Amino acid sequence: MTVTLLGSASLLDRQSGRRGDAAYLCALAADPAARFLIMAGHTPLIAADPSGLWFSAAAIQRAAIGDAEPLFLGILPSSQAGYFALSACEASAAKLASHTDLHAPTDIRTIASSGSLPAGDVALAGLARSLFAWHESARHCGWCGAKTAMTDGGWKRRCEPCGKDTFPRLDPVVIMLVTDGESCILAHEPRYKPGMFSCPAGYIEPGEDIAHAVRREIHEELGLTVTDVAITSSQPWPFPHSLMIGCTAICLPGPLNIDPAEIVEARWFTRGEATQLVAGTHPDGVWIPGPQAIAHHLIRAFAEPA
Amino acid sequence: MTVTLLGSASLLDRQSGRRGDAAYLCALAADPAARFLIMAGHTPLIAADPSGLWFSAAAIQRAAIGDAEPLFLGILPSSQAGYFALSACEASAAKLASHTDLHAPTDIRTIASSGSLPAGDVALAGLARSLFAWHESARHCGWCGAKTAMTDGGWKRRCEPCGKDTFPRLDPVVIMLVTDGESCILAHEPRYKPGMFSCPAGYIEPGEDIAHAVRREIHEELGLTVTDVAITSSQPWPFPHSLMIGCTAICLPGPLNIDPAEIVEARWFTRGEATQLVAGTHPDGVWIPGPQAIAHHLIRAFAEPA
Repeated sequence: MTVTLLGSASLLDRQSGRRGDAAYLCALAADPAARFLIMAGHTPLIAADPSGLWFSAAAIQRAAIGDAEPLFLGILPSSQAGYFALSACEASAAKLASHTDLHAPTDIRTIASSGSLPAGDVALAGLARSLFAWHESARHCGWCGAKTAMTDGGWKRRCEPCGKDTFPRLDPVVIMLVTDGESCILAHEPRYKPGMFSCPAGYIEPGEDIAHAVRREIHEELGLTVTDVAITSSQPWPFPHSLMIGCTAICLPGPLNIDPAEIVEARWFTRGEATQLVAGTHPDGVWIPGPQAIAHHLIRAFAEPA
Repeated sequence: MTVTLLGSASLLDRQSGRRGDAAYLCALAADPAARFLIMAGHTPLIAADPSGLWFSAAAIQRAAIGDAEPLFLGILPSSQAGYFALSACEASAAKLASHTDLHAPTDIRTIASSGSLPAGDVALAGLARSLFAWHESARHCGWCGAKTAMTDGGWKRRCEPCGKDTFPRLDPVVIMLVTDGESCILAHEPRYKPGMFSCPAGYIEPGEDIAHAVRREIHEELGLTVTDVAITSSQPWPFPHSLMIGCTAICLPGPLNIDPAEIVEARWFTRGEATQLVAGTHPDGVWIPGPQAIAHHLIRAFAEPA
């Protein structure tokens, strides 16, 4: 079984400078080489044959999915073929299933952790999920309330009455491995499955930098003071449209003071225990997210320093 | 003259867990120790006396500014006094000016580069600017178009008809010092003042991590391929609500291919020239942003490696 960090959609050249060129996008979509990913709600449809996520224009026309303007994901550099995303209603998804053998609908987290699709495809399904979620949230203009229209291959929405443009939203989040040098602190949040512990995390707010957000979140959630914040890594996280920014920080001595609204339990794990968590062999049965999540890599880097 | 990185609003404890407690916020705002920052459009009002940005409840009542619910910025840890931000119409600003000696309105960039206010105060003005800009853009619900109402001290807007909450928007941006080891590449964008060069930058998109955004932006804007992306620093940038993420990257050999829509001129500067740029003494008269901007610090770190 291969598993993958839910990573960057780097398979495609996004051609961001040509998103405003409607004729170019039309020609790409009309080319028989074009391929379409289909989201039914939050879940991509997956063909049982090796084509996986990617449907031809013929297939989507048979399912009557292709009426809406597709989101432009980019072109495949090797073939210059256009890759797009469409959203299917239940009826269209059923129609597609009637003439194509589909896998059972599976959410993106499960697809990522199962390794059933190539990493680059999972990332593109995540990109499509983030864009569609943003479109849902931006159907009306925040300034004036009028209906907005999708443009630029789905990378912009325009309000004709007031002339405002809005762009895809991306929420930066800090997620941090806090250590006292010997142990790291992990938390169990109310929404987690039983036994799961992970790195504390929280949205970055206006008026703060990344280090400030790390210090604030750790102080609010755990009552601890941290220093020496370092930014180590990042990951797009399409639930619905976050950018996870992985950090490390050093904890100063002091008592734990948990915010019960955010954290059920926080626990220090030694480096040896962290190694067990990464291997899935902790004797208490506690466990951490899999390698599709940046938390796994932060904990692994602590367990196995370079 | 002191200048300051336009930094984190770290003067105050944001008390984010108590933003939903309306009675607490009301009591804080009614206390005579409470202080209010007043934005007239994008510009903070500044008293000529040492109180600077901060007005008392009595002053804002005399100016009839205090009718709207204020944004809650946080409490001063030493005194527990509440700090708030209000938006003033032109008439109210004039009324305030009639009984308080005010400095001429000055935009936040200029305030930051002049050093006329303490760094912590400039950061709080930036936070207020970002929050007010977000409120402007979220007066209607993006899902249904109904009017939304501010709640949680200005950190949330709620749509009663459809029940959706929206939170302050923060747009992550990569800004990068790209070097071939000997020189760094800086760009002059169409919107820059004559002679100014700075680090290339661009919005991070859904479905990519920070390193991917750096590689994509440099490829799109300059036609160059970069590797070894490292994240070094960050800065809130309240124009209107960005998070600048400072990176370094190494450029592989290859021809420059500029996107004329984004870049007027790109130029390699040796380490010695970078030192001149930081000092403001480059013989060609070209110059870089001041120390209020993260670009200055990225270029300085290249000019003067640790």
